[in-house]
Parts: sequence; structure tokens; C-alpha cells
Amino acid sequence: MDKIKIAVMGYGNVGRGVELAAGVSDDMELCAVLTRRDPSSVKIIGDTEVMRAEDFAVLKGKIDVMILCGGSATDLPVQGPEYARHFCTVDSFDTHAKIPVYYKAVDGAAKAGGNVSIISAGWDPGVFSLNRLYFEAILPKGVSYTFWGRGVSQGHSDAIRRIKGVADARQYTVPIESAVAEVRNGLCPKLNARQKHLRECYVVACEGADHERIRSEIVNMPDYFADYDTTVFFITEEEMKRDHSGMPHGGFVIRNGNTAGGAGHTIEYSLKLGSNPEFTGSVLCACARAAVRMKREGMCGARTMLDIPPVYLSDKPPEELYFSLL
Amino acid sequence: MDKIKIAVMGYGNVGRGVELAAGVSDDMELCAVLTRRDPSSVKIIGDTEVMRAEDFAVLKGKIDVMILCGGSATDLPVQGPEYARHFCTVDSFDTHAKIPVYYKAVDGAAKAGGNVSIISAGWDPGVFSLNRLYFEAILPKGVSYTFWGRGVSQGHSDAIRRIKGVADARQYTVPIESAVAEVRNGLCPKLNARQKHLRECYVVACEGADHERIRSEIVNMPDYFADYDTTVFFITEEEMKRDHSGMPHGGFVIRNGNTAGGAGHTIEYSLKLGSNPEFTGSVLCACARAAVRMKREGMCGARTMLDIPPVYLSDKPPEELYFSLL
Repeated sequence: MDKIKIAVMGYGNVGRGVELAAGVSDDMELCAVLTRRDPSSVKIIGDTEVMRAEDFAVLKGKIDVMILCGGSATDLPVQGPEYARHFCTVDSFDTHAKIPVYYKAVDGAAKAGGNVSIISAGWDPGVFSLNRLYFEAILPKGVSYTFWGRGVSQGHSDAIRRIKGVADARQYTVPIESAVAEVRNGLCPKLNARQKHLRECYVVACEGADHERIRSEIVNMPDYFADYDTTVFFITEEEMKRDHSGMPHGGFVIRNGNTAGGAGHTIEYSLKLGSNPEFTGSVLCACARAAVRMKREGMCGARTMLDIPPVYLSDKPPEELYFSLL
Repeated sequence: MDKIKIAVMGYGNVGRGVELAAGVSDDMELCAVLTRRDPSSVKIIGDTEVMRAEDFAVLKGKIDVMILCGGSATDLPVQGPEYARHFCTVDSFDTHAKIPVYYKAVDGAAKAGGNVSIISAGWDPGVFSLNRLYFEAILPKGVSYTFWGRGVSQGHSDAIRRIKGVADARQYTVPIESAVAEVRNGLCPKLNARQKHLRECYVVACEGADHERIRSEIVNMPDYFADYDTTVFFITEEEMKRDHSGMPHGGFVIRNGNTAGGAGHTIEYSLKLGSNPEFTGSVLCACARAAVRMKREGMCGARTMLDIPPVYLSDKPPEELYFSLL
């Protein structure tokens, strides 16, 4: 069987995660890394060719899937529909409120190109969404909860870095253990934002900056911090590098539900990720495999992980999976 | 939209679980319960018609799915292929070694009848199998573990009841906490049967029976108990009724895996079920919904939960699921 040929568009943390995941997938081959930077300035792990993003057209007919590793704010809204005309694509678009609009744009382009484009893949949205769906379909009467962390939130870290006098920052989202315990024990608590998570901020201040002002600006920042109990720690640049350069993350989705005979049930799905982008890259690779199979079956248009027959994510034939996993 | 019309074949604990689950599924209607007993002797919860199993043919064209709730040892090997000719079916066939043969028999019959038959649904095989597949597809380098319990094993309880001098028995499978902790901490331990689970047996002995002989026959029984640390408690009939009449179960599937950058990841799926058969009935109902949709899309043949596009399990339209769950 021919290997699945993939290309990566955008070489940040997730692009690197895809490169690593493709390298350990026996049925996949990374054929190109595309970048908007000067290709000669981009150091990748392996020896795949690094190309300029605008030269993507030379890959038409040569690759099976383009994995889009840009950001959801400005990259994907343009790239998703653009590349879906030319290639099967996979992305991790995660701006929740804009998913319906994004889905529609990618769906139209993918149909025009006869391609399958899997959007919003990863862990949340992604495997967490999948679990919410399975939980609700099986136990329609119940309450689902999502907790994130302990892990680094890129968005919250960036928000702190924009404050005057901040040289660097890292924000950890931390689930509140007593709340998690209540949910795990099937108590179906009502929980607001502050009762579910707290926020820990590690800040390197510029020389002479007023720590108290920075702390106040952080903890009172609307949307990001004001609705949470937030703790701010000032540390040195060396401490930041030494203690906070990993990108761990994780979390859990839990459902408390009842069946009509009165029995209570608790289902939980949890992730402890040593590296958020490496795990995300691994999910995107599995979805690339599914996109290729769905296209070979004659499908086209946008899809999400909620639509993928699970066997399509594996490199093993269905009969082997039935026997080894059922 | 018309409701999905289901019938239940076999009214034991799981059949009752299906009746309860269908009752709280707004898009489903239970049309008939079929039994090999005298229908007038079968008391069900609702007011659905109870029919003789051999009269099943009157339901042709009147129901969408027949849910087969018989046992895997002798009922399903006959019923699965028999009914798949006439109806879409769902079952929970769980004799692992015979799944390939059973799949083939049901697949042939379902194709001959133009039906979709979902086999081996439930929680294990079923949602646990699904998670093993997702885990492996995302993290191909790693080790998966399954722990069952604490919960009642019907097969092990029956094995004890066959011992001379035993009036009643209940066997709990109990995961060993220290082993679970090692796995959760990502240590990838090598564990044999004895290191993963222990077995707790509650026995009501007949009057005058020799407890020591019964205990010895239990703990030395090959396959069932000899490879485990087994504890036997002798209790009264009243204690059995009072403390052991529920059917709780559960367990967890855990994978420790690494991505190629060196990061370690742990994924866990866990179930705490107040009632094993009520939960199983709920899974079978969700699969019945999927079978109907797959048939409407033109598919036929045998399928497993590993083949079902997740959205087909839900009563909500895909666009609504994308927006509420992604």
C-alpha cells in the first residue's frame, strides 16, 4: 500500500508536532513543510523540503493531505477555504463562536475541489468533543462538565505579555480539586467559572516595573481573569526558562447521568499531556488518514471528528481492529 | 420526523435496560417485546405488547430495528444471523474468541436482507473498544490497559453457583489500586492477571455444606479463579438480598504513550455504572439509532461501534452537534 503523503502548512509548535507524529506513523510520509517565512531560516527536525507557502500549487496531485497548522485568529479563516479547493485538509480551528461560519466556508471550497476537509480537530475541540457526543448519546439525561488543566493557556499567557512592563509570562489553568471531586462523585453540582478553575500566572517583569500595578491589571482583566481567582508570581527570566518552558496540558470531560430505572452513572475521559502541541499534532495525523479514506470512498466537503467512522483513524484494517479491540 | 420503531428480543436484565432507555429517548418508540416464555408470564415495566418470539414475522415492515438481548453463549449465535435477514439488529455479543465467526455469519445474513446489524455493542466490548481504538490511532507508540470493576461478574457468579453446596453467590471483580496508580502515573508496568484484579466472592451455602471445601473449590477453579487472589465470604440469604442485589460495574481503559519528541501522555476513560444492564441497554438504543441511519444511507451488512460515525448515535442534527460540542 502506498504511504499517505502529507504536507504541513505553518511550522510553529503544532507543525512541529505533526512532523514528529508523521515520523512514527508507518503509513505516512511528510513530503513538504510550507512557511510564510524565508524557508532557509526555518530549521525543522527532519530532512523534509521546506518551501515557500505561495508555491503550494506545485504540490497538487503530489500529496494526499495538507495539514494546516496556523492560528485560528487570522491564518485559518483564510487558509482553510483557500487550500480546501486544492487538497484534502485537516486543521485545528478552535474559535468556538465562529465554527458554523468557518464550517460553511470550508465545506463550499472542499466540495468545489472534490476534497474532504476535517476542521476543528485536536483535543478540545476534538477528542473532548467526541466524548461529549458519546456521553450524551448514551445518557441523554444528565449533566456534562469540562475541566482544563493543569496546563499552559497560550491565549492567557499572551494577554499578560501585552501588559506594559511585562517581559514574559506563562499562565496555568488549574481545575479546582474540590469541584472535580463533587462531579466525580456524581453530585451534579452547579458550578460557575470561578468554582471550576483558578489561574496561576508566572511573570517576568521589566526592570523597574511596578509589580503591584501589573498584578492588578492581570487579576482585573475582563474575560480573561476577572471572573477567576488569580494568583500572580513574579519570577526571573532564568526561572521562567528553567521551570516553565514545557507545554504540558490536559483536562477531563465528565458526565453524571441517570438511566430511567434510577441508577446513576459517571463517565470520565481524561488527558494528561506531556506536550500539548505534540499530542495535537498526533490527532491531526490520525485525522489526515481518515480524510484520505473518506475521499477514496467518494465523499467530499467539510467534516469534523464527530463525523469520522473511528476505524478510519487507524492504520490497521477493520477486521484486525474488531478482533484485537472488541 | 417519524420515531424510530424498535422491538426487543429477550426480556432479561438487558432487555429491561433497553425498555428503560427507549422510554427516555424522544425519537424512539418501543413497539414490541418478544420472549420465548409464555408472554402472559412476562411482566414488563411499560404497556408495550409482549409477543411470542416465533411470531416475529408479523413485525416485518413495522419496526426499524430489533434489539437482540439474549446471551452470547447459545442465544445470539443463532438469533444474530436469523434476525439480520429480516430486520436491522443490534446486539451485545461478547464471546471475544468467536467474534470473527459471528461477524461473518451476521454480515452475510444482513447483506442478504439489505439490513445493517451492529454487533458487540455495550461497554466492553463497546465503548471501551472504541476508546482503545482512538487511543492507539492517536498514540501508536504506547501500552493500553483495561481494568474492570469494582463490579459483579455474571459469569464468575454463575461458576460459583454450580459448585455443590452453594445456594447463591455473587462475585465482584476488583481492580488492584496500586497497579492502577502505577498505570495512571505513566510507569507502563508489566502486569499479569493476578497483579491487575482480585476477586471477592459472597456465598450463601446450603445447610450443612462444608465451607472449607467450597472455599477450596472456588479459589482453585482453573481459568475463573486460580490465577487470582480470591477471597470468599459466607453470608446469609438475607445479607445477599440486602447487600448484593444491585448490578453495579465499571472500569477503566488507560493508555500510556509517547510522542516522538519524548513527551509522555496518559489518556484514561472510566465508567462508574450504578447498573450494568441499564447502561448497556442505553448503549444498545444509541446504536439502534445509528443502524437505522446507516441503512437509510444505503449501507448494509454487519458493523461494530468502531465503524459508526459518532453523529449517527445522537438524536440531534450534525450542525447542532458541531456548534454545541466542538
